Amino acid sequence: MAVYTDVTAEDLSVFLAGYDLGELLAYKGIAEGVENSNFLVHTVRGYFFLTLFERRVAPNDLPFFLGLMEHLAIRGLNCPQPVKSRSGKVIGALAGRPAAIVTFLDGVSIRRPHPVHCAAVGEALARLHLAGADFALGRANALSVAGWRPLYDRASARADAVQPGLDGAIAAELGKLEASWPRDLPQGVIHADLFPDNVFFLGDRLSGLIDFYFACTDTLVYDVAICLNAWCFETDHSYNVTKGRALLQAYGRIRALSRGEHAALPLLCRGAALRFLLTRLVDWLDVPAGALVKPKDPLEYFRKLRFHQAVESVRDYGIDE
Amino acid sequence: MAVYTDVTAEDLSVFLAGYDLGELLAYKGIAEGVENSNFLVHTVRGYFFLTLFERRVAPNDLPFFLGLMEHLAIRGLNCPQPVKSRSGKVIGALAGRPAAIVTFLDGVSIRRPHPVHCAAVGEALARLHLAGADFALGRANALSVAGWRPLYDRASARADAVQPGLDGAIAAELGKLEASWPRDLPQGVIHADLFPDNVFFLGDRLSGLIDFYFACTDTLVYDVAICLNAWCFETDHSYNVTKGRALLQAYGRIRALSRGEHAALPLLCRGAALRFLLTRLVDWLDVPAGALVKPKDPLEYFRKLRFHQAVESVRDYGIDE
Repeated sequence: MAVYTDVTAEDLSVFLAGYDLGELLAYKGIAEGVENSNFLVHTVRGYFFLTLFERRVAPNDLPFFLGLMEHLAIRGLNCPQPVKSRSGKVIGALAGRPAAIVTFLDGVSIRRPHPVHCAAVGEALARLHLAGADFALGRANALSVAGWRPLYDRASARADAVQPGLDGAIAAELGKLEASWPRDLPQGVIHADLFPDNVFFLGDRLSGLIDFYFACTDTLVYDVAICLNAWCFETDHSYNVTKGRALLQAYGRIRALSRGEHAALPLLCRGAALRFLLTRLVDWLDVPAGALVKPKDPLEYFRKLRFHQAVESVRDYGIDE
Repeated sequence: MAVYTDVTAEDLSVFLAGYDLGELLAYKGIAEGVENSNFLVHTVRGYFFLTLFERRVAPNDLPFFLGLMEHLAIRGLNCPQPVKSRSGKVIGALAGRPAAIVTFLDGVSIRRPHPVHCAAVGEALARLHLAGADFALGRANALSVAGWRPLYDRASARADAVQPGLDGAIAAELGKLEASWPRDLPQGVIHADLFPDNVFFLGDRLSGLIDFYFACTDTLVYDVAICLNAWCFETDHSYNVTKGRALLQAYGRIRALSRGEHAALPLLCRGAALRFLLTRLVDWLDVPAGALVKPKDPLEYFRKLRFHQAVESVRDYGIDE
């Protein structure tokens, strides 16, 4: 949770004058988002969401992120829709940062997903993959297999301080994944961070997806692997096969997974677990001075990785071969 | 800025079921308030403000704070109005904390007040004092003169590390104020923390007062002294007599200050400056581990105190005797 940048009402009013949103009535800094500063903004036109992009987001990536949200919203996916300025732009500048206004989405995040929520996520993810198929822009995934060794190098020397043996376990896994990472599976736009925080529900109905700031072009089924990790483990780190089956079956009803995608799933799940293990480990070891963010436990993902390493067949995920 | 307590959608929905506000649509932790955890809550009935009271607020004080807001709102003051539960209560419990829902107030805080804003604050403060006159409950001001020595004792040993000579200067001022603090001026409900953060404007029109969690029963004109300190100094710490005159004259048009209140103003301004100097100094020296709050500069109030010590007549504040 964080608001990194202070925005004055005076500056915000000047910024809003470039939009067709009417007078500023109120705004509040929102205590969520670990990468950017977020504000809920009330104008005479309603409630909107304002994001100021902080240093961890590359300005060159913003047209991809905002263009994607617009592309998906037009295709009926319930996600924040960028609001255009009077001059037709979706990216402006406020308080020295790139800034964007998007529509405010109702819904709440579920802390303890049930199978019905996992099914809804599976379906929404498949719809996202289909809707993204004709998106013109591309963005490499900086946090896919090629990005893991640099993260490992940053964390390696101190990894065993977090848990004895962690360094060697990561090194072995990394070597295995680098050698065998699949390259020939269907590619497309993936969300890449579809955790429960980023999915809104109203009751059991999925009402929207948010936070497209890790979205990229990558292996579609890798996105499924990220979701299995994020949605289908219990707090005791055990895999819940009922939730996994619900997610996978719902996904498959919208976009059928090929035999090759099924076969790659255990390896991709290991990769997804390693990716979050590594980024969390780096954050854990390297919390910047004055950070307002409590780092997430990297070992949660080490335990998930251990599960995937022990998987013998995709039946273990809930897929009936 | 802070959200100290995590609230799940599940828990919030259960809490809201006790109110006549309909289904929860969305909620966001708000990055403001240094004492409590605040959330903006959207239900089918509209937008509301939810506060969880953290350890620095005594539960016994809550009936005073919330009763006062209700009392003032009924008398036409624009302030958050507590929302009653189905059983008629304004204080509930959520996530193990006392919790209250109040109406959401539009308006934005002004960072650089102009004289027109100072006049609006003076008028609103006087209206608050009049509207509070028949409020039945009372609450001693724990941060008035009797509360300053304990604060000084906590900070004394390390005060000179903040600025050489600070410890002795505070000790001398404290002794002077303890010996000469006025006891016979009109008393009543005061806001006690009416800083620009706590006053909302829409354009130049004052649209509301918020944050009554320091409100108490004390010398009315002491509240004026707090506002002069908070609103009428420039960022270079110089007193702006035009702003001071605007605030005092607007106050006086609603509630005339007596000759005795005028005469006491310089001393009360010194007291108000010392009060914020001391609390900021204690916070500065004693930031708890893991705090999300950046402490405010205590020396700002030392410089204001220096100004008040040099005042020769209330004419220096903009009062024409």
